Amino acid sequence: MKAKIYIKYKEGILDPQGTVTNKALKSIDIKGIESIGIGKYIEMEFDKNISKDDAKKIAEESCKKMLANPNTETYSYIIED
Amino acid sequence: MKAKIYIKYKEGILDPQGTVTNKALKSIDIKGIESIGIGKYIEMEFDKNISKDDAKKIAEESCKKMLANPNTETYSYIIED
Repeated sequence: MKAKIYIKYKEGILDPQGTVTNKALKSIDIKGIESIGIGKYIEMEFDKNISKDDAKKIAEESCKKMLANPNTETYSYIIED
Repeated sequence: MKAKIYIKYKEGILDPQGTVTNKALKSIDIKGIESIGIGKYIEMEFDKNISKDDAKKIAEESCKKMLANPNTETYSYIIED
């Protein structure tokens, strides 16, 4: 059982890393991108005995209590077998 | 048109940030996680006139030439309207 967790900045929060990355892409002639937002992608592998419901609870609690900054970030996740 | 890009370490590449994060979660009593891998989640918003085919090409080229480190990372992406 595995969770794939996606964390990104909330709308309206400045993302300087994304802005600079877009500039860097333009500088090597990759064009057509309006904006880039850079967040975290976390793969969480669970112990063998963990059920799908448990996995959901653990992923939710991990995001809420540690992985995402509630002031500036939003998170979502999917659970996979 | 938007690309959602996921970058993670290749199998077998040491991910110290993931290891430490799992320890930190255990320390606040979140258990049942075998391992954690931490990568990047990039949302790329394209200019209005970009087609789906163009978007795919731009995402691919961006990953190949800049966003992912070919020595240590793998990438995947999906294109969304």
